[in-house]
Amino acid sequence: MTDSRIASLQQACPGLKLKTDPADLEHYGRDWTRRWTPAPLAIALPATVEEVQAVMRWTAAEGVAVVPSGGRTGLSGGAVAANGELVLSLERMNKALDYDAVDRTLVVQAGMPLEALHNAALEHGLIYPVDFAARGSCSIGGNIATNAGGIRVIRYGNTREWIAGLKVVTATGELLELNKGLIKNSSGYDFRQLLIGSEGTLGVIVEATVKLTDPPPASNVMLLALPSFDVLMQVFAAFRARLQLQAFEFFTDRALEHVLAHGAQAPFDEVHPYYVVTEFAAGDEAQEAAAMAAFEDCMGNGWVSDGVISASDAQAAQLWRLREGITEALARYKPYKNDVSVRISSMPAFLAETQALIGEAYPHFDVVWFGHIGDGNLHINVLKPDGTSDADFVSQCEHVTKLLAQVLARFNGSISAEHGIGLVKKGYLDSTRGPAEIALMKAVKRAFDPEGRLNPGKLFDL
Amino acid sequence: MTDSRIASLQQACPGLKLKTDPADLEHYGRDWTRRWTPAPLAIALPATVEEVQAVMRWTAAEGVAVVPSGGRTGLSGGAVAANGELVLSLERMNKALDYDAVDRTLVVQAGMPLEALHNAALEHGLIYPVDFAARGSCSIGGNIATNAGGIRVIRYGNTREWIAGLKVVTATGELLELNKGLIKNSSGYDFRQLLIGSEGTLGVIVEATVKLTDPPPASNVMLLALPSFDVLMQVFAAFRARLQLQAFEFFTDRALEHVLAHGAQAPFDEVHPYYVVTEFAAGDEAQEAAAMAAFEDCMGNGWVSDGVISASDAQAAQLWRLREGITEALARYKPYKNDVSVRISSMPAFLAETQALIGEAYPHFDVVWFGHIGDGNLHINVLKPDGTSDADFVSQCEHVTKLLAQVLARFNGSISAEHGIGLVKKGYLDSTRGPAEIALMKAVKRAFDPEGRLNPGKLFDL
Repeated sequence: MTDSRIASLQQACPGLKLKTDPADLEHYGRDWTRRWTPAPLAIALPATVEEVQAVMRWTAAEGVAVVPSGGRTGLSGGAVAANGELVLSLERMNKALDYDAVDRTLVVQAGMPLEALHNAALEHGLIYPVDFAARGSCSIGGNIATNAGGIRVIRYGNTREWIAGLKVVTATGELLELNKGLIKNSSGYDFRQLLIGSEGTLGVIVEATVKLTDPPPASNVMLLALPSFDVLMQVFAAFRARLQLQAFEFFTDRALEHVLAHGAQAPFDEVHPYYVVTEFAAGDEAQEAAAMAAFEDCMGNGWVSDGVISASDAQAAQLWRLREGITEALARYKPYKNDVSVRISSMPAFLAETQALIGEAYPHFDVVWFGHIGDGNLHINVLKPDGTSDADFVSQCEHVTKLLAQVLARFNGSISAEHGIGLVKKGYLDSTRGPAEIALMKAVKRAFDPEGRLNPGKLFDL
Repeated sequence: MTDSRIASLQQACPGLKLKTDPADLEHYGRDWTRRWTPAPLAIALPATVEEVQAVMRWTAAEGVAVVPSGGRTGLSGGAVAANGELVLSLERMNKALDYDAVDRTLVVQAGMPLEALHNAALEHGLIYPVDFAARGSCSIGGNIATNAGGIRVIRYGNTREWIAGLKVVTATGELLELNKGLIKNSSGYDFRQLLIGSEGTLGVIVEATVKLTDPPPASNVMLLALPSFDVLMQVFAAFRARLQLQAFEFFTDRALEHVLAHGAQAPFDEVHPYYVVTEFAAGDEAQEAAAMAAFEDCMGNGWVSDGVISASDAQAAQLWRLREGITEALARYKPYKNDVSVRISSMPAFLAETQALIGEAYPHFDVVWFGHIGDGNLHINVLKPDGTSDADFVSQCEHVTKLLAQVLARFNGSISAEHGIGLVKKGYLDSTRGPAEIALMKAVKRAFDPEGRLNPGKLFDL
């Protein structure tokens, strides 16, 4: 059965690169969640938009389900192929195409890694400002499919803000050219916006026109030690009022311990319960003075116990490593991840309730907190204790997520700030979206993909 | 027939304010296009979200079509009710609700005029930066429904950028609470984005959470006289490279003549063929010096023949009036309006082709050009000559729009930059959107409004 379909696909798309080795099926069939057993039909690796269209036409004719695939660094199972789907990997379509200096846009293929996009922008003296730790592996297509956020949202917004145009191949192989790089285009529904964050369920993103911008002025990085959780929002307010913040990231001592065990250098002699790493414009003396004033204000109020400011790029990188190294340092503990958000104004009350809930729910588990506090986004990582089975562990965590979802619903928050819903969160979608909205999401899904062949089972079950 | 339905509506919604006088039907049944004869069933003026829901439930039960109605300043017929529809006016829902200093958001009802929103933001020391000449009459709900642009897009983007949340009532009276003011929310399709620019065809926007921002630093306004059309983009590039532009607006001598005839004061002793009004940050000496350097560069290159810089707020307002007074000054000539856009990089070639086309097509008509050239948006207003019938005039102009649409398609431009498609442009939608995209737009429309009762006939015919 499987063989004849692969032969049929190869016949329909003669030049198409296909992979069917068991190792490839496993590699391309899963993402960073590692919770499902990969079982794709095959891996298609088209090199052109036309090949993507041909593949999609074949899947339409044969009734084959498709999982679009970027860097598979996702944490919600959005790129998992566990049910005989054809994985459509964009990894060979990874090049920068056209740069336009007047429009300040760069056209890139969807499989381009984020870091390669950063470098391509720098070649033109500009930056693509969305950034996060998976930059070396994740692809811009995947970033768009989840409206990726990351560490600079506070200054530059999410991926959505930087997409001037998209090329998308539909479930039946038609090519949509969405918005074409225009600044103003009030000509009906903006499907570019609808596709951003749609997790591969409405179409296959094959190309993007991304906006670039000027590099920021010189910046400094500061690491702050906090005596308690309660003062976090005060410290944020004190810094936001005085500085142009580019990042404001928080993590706990438990997070730091794991990063230090993974090889990073301790920033302070003493141990503190909470830390903030913040980056801010420091292009002139006034800005540097403002940073010191913010720091002294926080010290004077007892909100900050200690601090260190970067004196060089190398030191800035060292301080950043303390925050950015967390996900990697935790990976071996197979953490169960919550990625939630509320409005910033709701953060203090939400943090207090969540802290109480987690403390009660996980008395024996190692729980690591960190997040983009300036955007209202909190990551809660629960580490699997040795000796507990995967299934048991996930089931205990799911129970707590149900309670957390109830808290989130009361705070008008989101069960997924930046990871997407995928397979992992779909049971909790109704904590963030109302029943009428979910019904409309399914209706829109059917409008784009009546047969439900595009990334089936992700986001919701039809 | 009509009477019994109105009685039925009143019975279903006992407290609902209704208007049925012929003068009201005419007033609320049309927008600024004046091309269709208003013929609504009645005007409903709900005071609360619950009343909007009750009205929509009644229309669903009775199969009545609905035209959502804001300030009716639209130029594409998007708010016209010419076929017995119920006009649902949001004008009584015009208040600011909750301000949040931490989130820097303001919740406003959809019927709030843009200028009232500007003033409400200023009360908190912040600004809502989207702005255009109709500010006193248009409503924020209408702005959102067309993703309104205006004169500050070059600095602040379109309305889309400033909407953190929307409340929307569906065709069947259900309330959607979209995004709820979150910065990060990757939980499925972002219907907030889909509703923005949907021209009342997917739901009734009843409330918005808008983002506010810091007032800009002090700015100056400069009026430039240009010797020819060809140098326009060079002048733009020279100013953009040196200054933080907040606006860069262009108009022709014919436009100026009409504004002067309408009472404005002549800026120069001599007549010049083209003008630019630009506003830019001028908070310190370096910025003021940069502005003078840009001006002198342009003078030295022969791109600019004369200029004047504002020395006071009053003078800045006078210079702005020359640009902002155009639409009002032209109104009595019943102008036929084109509102087109291309990428900035395509502007020079597009302008040359369009200028040639218009010159050939309208040898005997008065054609007035102006636009937001820094966003790639050009307005072409053709004035109706005395003695030509409305129908004859529109038919001649439609012929030229067909040719213009062909040029736009070649340049990947848009037939509507900021006015929307409405009734006026729907025949040309396929110059901007491909057939697969239009088919999907119709499918999404049916997903939200299977009976086609929401603003029927706008955007496209189902």
